[in-house]
Amino acid sequence: MQLGPTLIDDTFAEAFGMRYCRLIVTAADGYWLDAAVREFSGYSASVIACDAEIGIERRLSPAESPDGRVGVSLLVFGFSTDALAKAIPNRTGQCLMTCPSTAVFNGLPHSETKIPLGKHLRYFGDGYQKGKLISTRRYWRIPVMDGEFIVEDVLGVERGVAGGNIILQAREQSVALAAARRAAEAVHAMPGVIAPFPGGVARSGSKVGSRYKGLKASTADAYCPTLRGRVLCNLHPETNCAYEIVIDGETESAVGQAMVAAMQAAAGEGIVAITAGNYGGKLGKFHFHLHKLLS
Amino acid sequence: MQLGPTLIDDTFAEAFGMRYCRLIVTAADGYWLDAAVREFSGYSASVIACDAEIGIERRLSPAESPDGRVGVSLLVFGFSTDALAKAIPNRTGQCLMTCPSTAVFNGLPHSETKIPLGKHLRYFGDGYQKGKLISTRRYWRIPVMDGEFIVEDVLGVERGVAGGNIILQAREQSVALAAARRAAEAVHAMPGVIAPFPGGVARSGSKVGSRYKGLKASTADAYCPTLRGRVLCNLHPETNCAYEIVIDGETESAVGQAMVAAMQAAAGEGIVAITAGNYGGKLGKFHFHLHKLLS
Amino acid sequence: MQLGPTLIDDTFAEAFGMRYCRLIVTAADGYWLDAAVREFSGYSASVIACDAEIGIERRLSPAESPDGRVGVSLLVFGFSTDALAKAIPNRTGQCLMTCPSTAVFNGLPHSETKIPLGKHLRYFGDGYQKGKLISTRRYWRIPVMDGEFIVEDVLGVERGVAGGNIILQAREQSVALAAARRAAEAVHAMPGVIAPFPGGVARSGSKVGSRYKGLKASTADAYCPTLRGRVLCNLHPETNCAYEIVIDGETESAVGQAMVAAMQAAAGEGIVAITAGNYGGKLGKFHFHLHKLLS
Amino acid sequence: MQLGPTLIDDTFAEAFGMRYCRLIVTAADGYWLDAAVREFSGYSASVIACDAEIGIERRLSPAESPDGRVGVSLLVFGFSTDALAKAIPNRTGQCLMTCPSTAVFNGLPHSETKIPLGKHLRYFGDGYQKGKLISTRRYWRIPVMDGEFIVEDVLGVERGVAGGNIILQAREQSVALAAARRAAEAVHAMPGVIAPFPGGVARSGSKVGSRYKGLKASTADAYCPTLRGRVLCNLHPETNCAYEIVIDGETESAVGQAMVAAMQAAAGEGIVAITAGNYGGKLGKFHFHLHKLLS
Repeated sequence: MQLGPTLIDDTFAEAFGMRYCRLIVTAADGYWLDAAVREFSGYSASVIACDAEIGIERRLSPAESPDGRVGVSLLVFGFSTDALAKAIPNRTGQCLMTCPSTAVFNGLPHSETKIPLGKHLRYFGDGYQKGKLISTRRYWRIPVMDGEFIVEDVLGVERGVAGGNIILQAREQSVALAAARRAAEAVHAMPGVIAPFPGGVARSGSKVGSRYKGLKASTADAYCPTLRGRVLCNLHPETNCAYEIVIDGETESAVGQAMVAAMQAAAGEGIVAITAGNYGGKLGKFHFHLHKLLS
Repeated sequence: MQLGPTLIDDTFAEAFGMRYCRLIVTAADGYWLDAAVREFSGYSASVIACDAEIGIERRLSPAESPDGRVGVSLLVFGFSTDALAKAIPNRTGQCLMTCPSTAVFNGLPHSETKIPLGKHLRYFGDGYQKGKLISTRRYWRIPVMDGEFIVEDVLGVERGVAGGNIILQAREQSVALAAARRAAEAVHAMPGVIAPFPGGVARSGSKVGSRYKGLKASTADAYCPTLRGRVLCNLHPETNCAYEIVIDGETESAVGQAMVAAMQAAAGEGIVAITAGNYGGKLGKFHFHLHKLLS
Repeated sequence: MQLGPTLIDDTFAEAFGMRYCRLIVTAADGYWLDAAVREFSGYSASVIACDAEIGIERRLSPAESPDGRVGVSLLVFGFSTDALAKAIPNRTGQCLMTCPSTAVFNGLPHSETKIPLGKHLRYFGDGYQKGKLISTRRYWRIPVMDGEFIVEDVLGVERGVAGGNIILQAREQSVALAAARRAAEAVHAMPGVIAPFPGGVARSGSKVGSRYKGLKASTADAYCPTLRGRVLCNLHPETNCAYEIVIDGETESAVGQAMVAAMQAAAGEGIVAITAGNYGGKLGKFHFHLHKLLS
Repeated sequence: MQLGPTLIDDTFAEAFGMRYCRLIVTAADGYWLDAAVREFSGYSASVIACDAEIGIERRLSPAESPDGRVGVSLLVFGFSTDALAKAIPNRTGQCLMTCPSTAVFNGLPHSETKIPLGKHLRYFGDGYQKGKLISTRRYWRIPVMDGEFIVEDVLGVERGVAGGNIILQAREQSVALAAARRAAEAVHAMPGVIAPFPGGVARSGSKVGSRYKGLKASTADAYCPTLRGRVLCNLHPETNCAYEIVIDGETESAVGQAMVAAMQAAAGEGIVAITAGNYGGKLGKFHFHLHKLLS
């Protein structure tokens, strides 16, 4: 199957069920909002070695945000509800409570499963914190140097889909970089998804296992162009550079649509092929067949 | 003492000896360099609860960078050489090796103390990595999907100074935010220092101890304007909003000069006072007296 | 009338009928799109001395844009259809045709009134340009160094509303700057409007006439805080700093809604009053009464 | 001659003597400084159809700037002193005087030739403006809504060099775009130069004359890849996409060094050749031979 000049491999991306939360963060203006987002969403590319996978879902205008200020909707994915219950309060305390002017709200208020956020952070107030119930939602006002940090008591948790992906392949690195950026910008514009790797893109794919004892993962040699000829190679014969766009989302449908947007944006002159990463189909319960997505 | 309309308290900032490394990171262009920096330097405001304090020291033009590409010099502070030896390889593996097109170099090549970087990460190459000695410095070429990730074998470690600070105080939050931003921008322009908090500024100052068992730190109530009257207050009587600019640097002199730049940028209309945080002078070996710095 | 702590003057903004076009500009990625927008929308604050008033209406995802690339919708306001017919081809030739990878489309395809764009620029192709009709719309392919510049033959022109405004007033400049930025960010998030002044804000309001012969306009002395006591002052007695957010939009309703968003974002601590600029109501046919808008 | 995999043509760039001014612009913080720069430096790619060629020379820290705030040094090139004397006050009045919090200073105080700036703009003050002499330099304080706009009386004018250039050529557009961006970023990092086209790069090169009467310039068909075979082609036979980086600078040496930086940054995989634009050497008095620059 072709998408313009680009061959689309007849294969599938294998994705996994994960849990996620949505945080709505607001701030006094765009400078402080960006400062908060940068601090909160760093060091969060992959749950293989980070505590969470985090990205911006979308920006909120003052008219859309809960307190009439500029805001952002962040999605945070973790292996389990427990993992999120540990990671998010830690990061919120270090990265958002510390950031001038921010407030934090629950973006999944209707979820049955909940984890503590303000319920946990409030103790930083050393007894001076105050609860506030508005309709059915509880907030905490924690005294800080610029007044009070407003943070919602709990966050809803839902089941999401993580690890949707495409792998784009090019003859030259600058062509691949340009296509990767286009794909990442296309995913960022889609609702309900994030691309958690740096700039939305991963370059160091990994396989399970290693020849070194004690290491659980190592470079995905079958996708390393410089190893062609020494190992079994899964890349198109003309490929000298490949990048992976990894996509986490609220639903199977959101991930699939984002994969389509990523393929359409990436395909083009110099992109010899687009494939996807899977583990034979036995590990992850979601299979995104590229040809089916595009038809 | 006055700095224009702003009272400068007769007090001092108390800072600590910490260890630091300098990473030189380069990338194909500004988009990917920023992606790398965002990923690497998030979740790094304070070693009280993060694994390191990280910030951009300065940007490097292609002419200044080791491989002729755009680059950045990052400073990473930790409690000890061991703490850095753990945090930096983890973050480099998750945030820089994963990021398209980056390379990582040792920015302190003459230091006697060294920690492993590529020496550790190379195992990700699963036996396909290659070492390369150029003059006296060793680099590793680790096969990844876009070719090879180049990373220096070791990083130098030096003794630095962490926790220099000023606390600016205003009647109104928007005045304080503006002054905080001016101060942060002034510090970012100084050599040899970083301001590791979000946007360069901290709003949730902490004191040692808590009324809740098991918590080691809690809000610095003496600096919370909303608690005035209920607790002993260290703020100027007219202050309704305060922010702290925390500064880590290579030397006592670099930190002191950055504090001066921060005070000069922050002082002005509506900033009633500038003070500094200390612990009575017994914990940290560096004391920065505000009046002495400004005279 | 109060909006929180801020007095809303019982007055109105006086706005004018102007003509506008909508350009859809696309580019290879966000870097080049921003380069195109910066070049095209500079030097365009006010038609009093510029050839047009220009701003970003909104950003377009690849899925929304006409050629599947990242895009932007720009609104361009002018005194007349003739003025737009002169300004827009000049600017497009200098700022967009010169910019790597861009294409330009008509964002008002259903308008009856049309001005030439590609119809005019095509002559740059020196006879090598080619027309292309897709459905009922004609495009030109002009050979340039990176291939072909695609530009639509004509642009639709509609009647819009220009000069909606609010003037916010504060005791201190940093408070006023913060409120102005909040208001500008709120307007940027509203559909169908632009705020054409730098950063969305004007600080040098003008009155008609001058004591110097030959000058048609001079500083609006009644709104200059430093002249209080020397001239009749229209500012609140506590005001030391004022800023105007000027809003142009597609319809009276779009401008009015953006003024509401601007007032709600600007009002707050330290903003003593919000007023609006008018000329007694005799020059402009649109009158936006602040109290009516907010009720 | 080769620069890595890239052929460097044995030719020269032909540049011209032009006049330039340096404006130092400061503002309250980076948001307003960027707003001022965007407004002032748009619509300024080429004096063939704009009133000036404008770009950022470098950013100034508070410690370097004349009033202790963040600043920027802008270079403005024009055909003549008279052209600058017309363009700069117009743009300053529309783009900087209107922008919240800015001030404007003369960055060439030692030049013998001077043009009026504040001397001209002061009349906007309608008689309320005030002059101020500090040492030998005169400033004007013009009352505006946020207080006073500070602007220096005159600007120095010097002889500079405009139109230095390289033309990079690639097989594929995305390779060319990446190289163009690298080159532009390299030029931006060099002192004493600007790259006035959008994002630093021009794609619609022009030749003198046209087959259409009344048009003075038309597309440089010899550099249009899609016209190969129909016209005499100056491009490398494998080139499908070319971009020009145009460089204006203070001195012949500054322009030459920036051309070297641009070539070093642009050359690489997929860039088949780098050439330069000239008019046979008879129009411009400065000739930059690529081979000589690189040796």
